[in-house]
Amino acid sequence: MISRRQALAGGGLLIVGVLPIRRGRAATQQPGATEKELIFRSTEPRNAEPKLSDLIQSWITPTKFFYIRSHAPNPRIDPQQYRLKIDGMVDRVTELRLEDLQRYPERTITATLTCAGNRRAEFNQQAPVGGVQWEAGAIGNATWTGVALADVLNDVGVADQARHVWLEGLDAVPHGEGTIPFGASIPIEKAIDADDGLGALLVTKMNGEPLSEDHGFPLRAIVPGYIGARSVKWLGRVSLAEHPSPNHYVAEAYKVVTDTSPLAWAEAGPIYRYPINAAIGKPEAGMTVPAGPLEVAGYVLPSGKRDSRVREVWVSADGGRGWVMAELVGEELPYCWRLWRAEVEVTPETKELICRASDSTGEFMPPRIAWNAKGYLQNSWFRLPINVQ
Amino acid sequence: MISRRQALAGGGLLIVGVLPIRRGRAATQQPGATEKELIFRSTEPRNAEPKLSDLIQSWITPTKFFYIRSHAPNPRIDPQQYRLKIDGMVDRVTELRLEDLQRYPERTITATLTCAGNRRAEFNQQAPVGGVQWEAGAIGNATWTGVALADVLNDVGVADQARHVWLEGLDAVPHGEGTIPFGASIPIEKAIDADDGLGALLVTKMNGEPLSEDHGFPLRAIVPGYIGARSVKWLGRVSLAEHPSPNHYVAEAYKVVTDTSPLAWAEAGPIYRYPINAAIGKPEAGMTVPAGPLEVAGYVLPSGKRDSRVREVWVSADGGRGWVMAELVGEELPYCWRLWRAEVEVTPETKELICRASDSTGEFMPPRIAWNAKGYLQNSWFRLPINVQ
Repeated sequence: MISRRQALAGGGLLIVGVLPIRRGRAATQQPGATEKELIFRSTEPRNAEPKLSDLIQSWITPTKFFYIRSHAPNPRIDPQQYRLKIDGMVDRVTELRLEDLQRYPERTITATLTCAGNRRAEFNQQAPVGGVQWEAGAIGNATWTGVALADVLNDVGVADQARHVWLEGLDAVPHGEGTIPFGASIPIEKAIDADDGLGALLVTKMNGEPLSEDHGFPLRAIVPGYIGARSVKWLGRVSLAEHPSPNHYVAEAYKVVTDTSPLAWAEAGPIYRYPINAAIGKPEAGMTVPAGPLEVAGYVLPSGKRDSRVREVWVSADGGRGWVMAELVGEELPYCWRLWRAEVEVTPETKELICRASDSTGEFMPPRIAWNAKGYLQNSWFRLPINVQ
Repeated sequence: MISRRQALAGGGLLIVGVLPIRRGRAATQQPGATEKELIFRSTEPRNAEPKLSDLIQSWITPTKFFYIRSHAPNPRIDPQQYRLKIDGMVDRVTELRLEDLQRYPERTITATLTCAGNRRAEFNQQAPVGGVQWEAGAIGNATWTGVALADVLNDVGVADQARHVWLEGLDAVPHGEGTIPFGASIPIEKAIDADDGLGALLVTKMNGEPLSEDHGFPLRAIVPGYIGARSVKWLGRVSLAEHPSPNHYVAEAYKVVTDTSPLAWAEAGPIYRYPINAAIGKPEAGMTVPAGPLEVAGYVLPSGKRDSRVREVWVSADGGRGWVMAELVGEELPYCWRLWRAEVEVTPETKELICRASDSTGEFMPPRIAWNAKGYLQNSWFRLPINVQ
């Protein structure tokens, strides 16, 4: 259901600096990764993930191997005409040009983004789930450069009653008989929790380069610790309110439900933080390997809470009876994944490799998780089929 | 945090038909149960539960043995001056007198109410929890007579965009430097889900008698399947909105959180449905019984979903190694508990009786549940210490 407010806002925003929706490539702004670099699950909208063997090559994910998640065709935005609207419970309703954002201190953080639907395809072993059929590649770690959302909000002035920050994209997602902007909502504490540079950012650069069209050019939100859906791309509007956004992607979608009745949607709360997760990227699924010692490698993401750190990653080659502790490699930063490697003994009886992990906040990957209708937050033990000769 | 809207509403409502807060008993309206009939956990506000041995005597809980949960001293309401205000996203903002409600068809249902904090005291074995220290008596089954909320809403006209119904009491709960009304919020599907008489009601009678002051005189909401907190007592206002109420008891309290930081409150969704639960009411805790066959009895409530039915109740006298299936007794109606009885063999080694249950929707009582900061939804295996000679 689309509210009049949403419909008006979406309609209004599309006039402000948004050219007709692109369907091919523009000369001025490359959308990003190609079909060679990513596995496209759909092309309109563009949804793609890397091969896991590519993904775990480096702690910083090169943009060409960074998953793409879109709900509508990429909007093509003229940066000269672009305006970020800030409204709702603020002292001064404001429109900012890109150059206006440069008044605020520049901040760069490294943070992992992961889709709430990462590893969704595994749910189909229990019962079918709809949505983009992600394997374990809907995750990536990048540097993000921009300004603190807190700095901007403090500047425009936030009313005492404001409790939530709505984020709205300039895209137009088909919905009912019309379109709606993709929207998110974050508690104000997350928006202003920037004392140590770990709050939400408004970013113009990814891995040191201007955002590609696929990743939200010219401006997107980055909300460390939260599912990727809260890091709205092609950001057009920031609104302050007493309650979470009624946008479809907050009030209805991105929820863990076992049926999709309107009542079940309404009763469930929005997903914010991502849970701990891990996957094996080496060897590749279905590969044939010789019996004996085998090098295994993958990624692990601690749960999206402040101060959450990876504690242990374990790998089993015998169905979960024996486990080898993996070695964590590379940097450890808040809200970032780690890479890991382990050596296990495989025999002709080995049918799969399993990995599981735990973090410092007490979260762990369980052997299995309950099925949910939209296939979100799959973080049970990761199982990789292999053949041993 | 109190919004201006809440503050105004609370202030405004207190003028309408609410006399000064009562601290003793009024001749005209008895508050209800006495200290002989219930165990008072606090007297201002009044919070009390029955002894379990009293509670399981009958399928319909006599009002004198029905738990009382209040967040503020009972407001003393003059029924002549009383008005129910209906506003927000409605076609006609309306004020209804009690006699106006009689235009709608009278409906009577039987439904179990249970506090989200029922069995809270058991959490203290893991780590201390605040709040009313309920044992397993914050539950009861009664008949409720009034009118369908759906009938009233259809009459005043509901805007298409309305998604949630806010319910607000005429009580005044101390909060910050002032007071707020106790508030709840239910999805509109729950409010209008009354085709078969199982939607929310506005009731004036409990067990065939006018509501006592303790139970919400002159009018309260009854929301079958939801935690008791959503069945607002002393109901003064019904508001329609696109989003859940920002009242403290929806936006902050009554949530399952492991810490009580503002961010944790904001991220968690409100509790609506209650989970499956059960307890043993006979024998009494700590009782000394002879070795041999022992009659055990208790209650079981299936999870608060439509069509949820109790499947099995099991009792163990040997720490969970052996289990006896209980016999379900009495009526089976939607959103109602059942009573049960079983005969087990106890020996001098028996230190406790355990009961667990499952329902037709796949819900079951787990051996243990994770601790949460406010001690809600305790539904792990119920353990009753006894001595066997």
